[in-house]
Amino acid sequence: MTDAHLDELKAELQAISDLNGAAMVLEWDQSTYMPAAGADARGRQIALLGELAHGRLTSPRMGELLKAVARLEDDDTVDGAMVRRARRQWERASRVPAALVSDIKNHTARSYVAWTQAKPKGDFAAVRPYLEKTVELSRRWSDCFPSAEHVLDPLVDANDPGMTTASVRALFDELRAALVPIVQAIAERPAPDRSFLEVGFPQAEQLAFGAEVAAELGYDFGRGRQDLTVHPFMIRFGAGDIRITTRVDEHDLTDALFGTIHEAGHAMYEQGIAPSFDGTPLGEGASAGVHESQSRLWENLVGRSRPFWERFYPRLQARFPQQLGEVDLDTFFRGVNRVERSLIRTEADEVTYNLHVMLRFDLEAQLLEGSLKVADLPEAWDARMASDLGVRPKSPTEGCMQDVHWYCMTIGGTFQGYALGNVIAAQVFAAARASLGDLDERIAAGDFGALRGWLTEHLYQHGARYLPDELVKRATGKPVGIEDFVAHLKAKYGALYGIAW
Amino acid sequence: MTDAHLDELKAELQAISDLNGAAMVLEWDQSTYMPAAGADARGRQIALLGELAHGRLTSPRMGELLKAVARLEDDDTVDGAMVRRARRQWERASRVPAALVSDIKNHTARSYVAWTQAKPKGDFAAVRPYLEKTVELSRRWSDCFPSAEHVLDPLVDANDPGMTTASVRALFDELRAALVPIVQAIAERPAPDRSFLEVGFPQAEQLAFGAEVAAELGYDFGRGRQDLTVHPFMIRFGAGDIRITTRVDEHDLTDALFGTIHEAGHAMYEQGIAPSFDGTPLGEGASAGVHESQSRLWENLVGRSRPFWERFYPRLQARFPQQLGEVDLDTFFRGVNRVERSLIRTEADEVTYNLHVMLRFDLEAQLLEGSLKVADLPEAWDARMASDLGVRPKSPTEGCMQDVHWYCMTIGGTFQGYALGNVIAAQVFAAARASLGDLDERIAAGDFGALRGWLTEHLYQHGARYLPDELVKRATGKPVGIEDFVAHLKAKYGALYGIAW
Repeated sequence: MTDAHLDELKAELQAISDLNGAAMVLEWDQSTYMPAAGADARGRQIALLGELAHGRLTSPRMGELLKAVARLEDDDTVDGAMVRRARRQWERASRVPAALVSDIKNHTARSYVAWTQAKPKGDFAAVRPYLEKTVELSRRWSDCFPSAEHVLDPLVDANDPGMTTASVRALFDELRAALVPIVQAIAERPAPDRSFLEVGFPQAEQLAFGAEVAAELGYDFGRGRQDLTVHPFMIRFGAGDIRITTRVDEHDLTDALFGTIHEAGHAMYEQGIAPSFDGTPLGEGASAGVHESQSRLWENLVGRSRPFWERFYPRLQARFPQQLGEVDLDTFFRGVNRVERSLIRTEADEVTYNLHVMLRFDLEAQLLEGSLKVADLPEAWDARMASDLGVRPKSPTEGCMQDVHWYCMTIGGTFQGYALGNVIAAQVFAAARASLGDLDERIAAGDFGALRGWLTEHLYQHGARYLPDELVKRATGKPVGIEDFVAHLKAKYGALYGIAW
Repeated sequence: MTDAHLDELKAELQAISDLNGAAMVLEWDQSTYMPAAGADARGRQIALLGELAHGRLTSPRMGELLKAVARLEDDDTVDGAMVRRARRQWERASRVPAALVSDIKNHTARSYVAWTQAKPKGDFAAVRPYLEKTVELSRRWSDCFPSAEHVLDPLVDANDPGMTTASVRALFDELRAALVPIVQAIAERPAPDRSFLEVGFPQAEQLAFGAEVAAELGYDFGRGRQDLTVHPFMIRFGAGDIRITTRVDEHDLTDALFGTIHEAGHAMYEQGIAPSFDGTPLGEGASAGVHESQSRLWENLVGRSRPFWERFYPRLQARFPQQLGEVDLDTFFRGVNRVERSLIRTEADEVTYNLHVMLRFDLEAQLLEGSLKVADLPEAWDARMASDLGVRPKSPTEGCMQDVHWYCMTIGGTFQGYALGNVIAAQVFAAARASLGDLDERIAAGDFGALRGWLTEHLYQHGARYLPDELVKRATGKPVGIEDFVAHLKAKYGALYGIAW
């Protein structure tokens, strides 16, 4: 009777996927078109759908079905992978008591409000009690997974399955050691001009250009669309409807442009997943880090490359002749790749970005371990900024209160994916280049199909079939490592800044 | 323990309302922004939410709760009305077997496809077997309500509670007797020009003007929004988010303009419902007919009136100076009120419209009674068109195949509401005028607040608290009748066409 059980399991997973997909539509609308007055009802509707999905995932019947098909878990087949991942989701959802989930949700909702009020004033004292409670709740969440070696492990594993605090830390220690001197060397050189990126660029033209680029890279608008929002995101409702959102700053050309390519990268990954995985736990990206690797690959390794701008810069100039007509390609290319030791993560460039992330990851681990007290967080933050980036926040507003994450969810689990993404992106891109050979020529000629095809074959189609480390090994022939990322930075920025490493 | 039961009932009704509200968001997106490739997943998601809402409504616990609070049903209180309406919904949902609901859904999905293919060719033979099956299924649906006097009654009652085939028929017979000679008298007069409405009007300008009018009438964009769609509709996700959609024909100014006012009328009704009714069965319109009365009141009695255009015509001319600069107010007013004996219901004017509806209602009754065979429908339709409107379809395309209704849902229950709406609109408007006195002056001065306030006080705030006939009696002092509607037509069109009745 295993087949009947498997069929029932798949039908139930499909229903859970549809409930989550429905909630996603509601969230997309909430972030794009919903009038503010709709917020209360929308909050209830989304919460209800979440409860229903959670209830089905943790139902006794789901436990029975997973037991009945447990023998498939060792199979190296799609069904085997699907059952493994379903079991993982079921176990994670079942281990955390509903009361704790509810406590965390209620507390972080209040914490978020306190943060929005305190952040402009840099009033850390106002958020401190909230943060202390968040640390406690995050520890309790982690305690639901008693086999973990480190208190941060279950939080990391939730988004980057198979990664641990130790494995992330080993990678990040190496990365930091490599990055700090690179950033210092660049900081000693004169900073390229980027003022021409900050004159006025009308919204409609920016949107049109971004959509043109996204379509040419391979984002399929027939199975998606682009809308405006405040905090851009990619969102999947099903294999045939994977949308991106964009924010436009009329006084910074790069915000919408690279933001659009970033979200289109996420979306092309999702659009490339095997259609037969849709509605199963395999119909999504392998991990936060692998997902971010594809947004970063398209944004940075393609979108900030010279061949890319050989292709697109004449068109950009044609759209903005008054603003860019007198700016030559080299100047533009240097401008969009300016490296700056700045205070704000979300404004950081390709070189310094990971330092911002690693700082957060280390502080998260210390907070959860108890080796750092919340009261001492601002000073620990500022000291680390000074040592890693050579800059010091004037206020928590531009220090440990700058990001929303710690104030609206558990502490730990999210940031490491951003840096893993940069590292994996470079490794995957290097493998694609080695395989395709003339990648720069293709990009300069506007042929993105070969790269997309390679990525689809080696990464995208597999969805969440493989654990991230196995997937990267299959695609690149080696485990996740920093070599390709560091080599990329040295080659690109050595040339740009005239540095021989 | 009744209070605990009542609280539990309300919480359960809120959850059902939230599930339905969530499904509405999905349908709105499906009709406005969804890429076609998203249709399969969307269909599943909407169906799942519908099943979950239906399952909760018909659950044994719901039956117990309704029994536990049954003593409230006789109370003339909000809770009493809420329990009565909840019981009504529960009973309706419980009486029809899930298998029949599913049969109807599957059959009408196939029937709809057959209709879309056969309609352009006027191939009635191709849809006939589908229609025969639809008649049979509609009868079986009706049979679930054995106490009904007429087979059409349960279908009518589903949308216009308290109305019966006999009561609708009595009203319609009177109405038809009054309308046919009015239409004939007008047809003998020269037709006013409307060619100036059919030159080019750019979409963006039409949308901007429509939104300006809707806002000035009182549609609150802070609790709603307007988007483009193919078949315009109003939709409610909750008290704070009630949206309208619009279609624009660049070669007919009236389509978007009056369509927007129509949907804004529906929306102002919903926006006026007491906020405390939200999430309960009282948080919606009283019936299809009363709902349509408010779209029609704003569209026709306000939006096609002379005072309205005294206010808005200068602004319309300013927006379209090339198209309307040379057209004076009188000519414009006559143009947007041209009466024409035409074949197509959706294009019909204020005078002839109800004749189209009554024809359908009578044929529905005959089909369900068995006194008219499906095979004889085209000839019965054409004969009635000839006798009522003096025109005869050349093909079923512009005859009994023109409307989607009979090919995508049960037969019976929908059309009567359109004509009831026109009748109730005139009766309510006359009562408002009698109460407010200087209504025309207010409209010409752009003061719509008094009218909206009167309607909110007498109709909108009550939501579905009262049965439609009681609600109309409370608002106007008399039961639903045709006098005010006929008097309105005679006064307005007598003046326009120079006819002394």
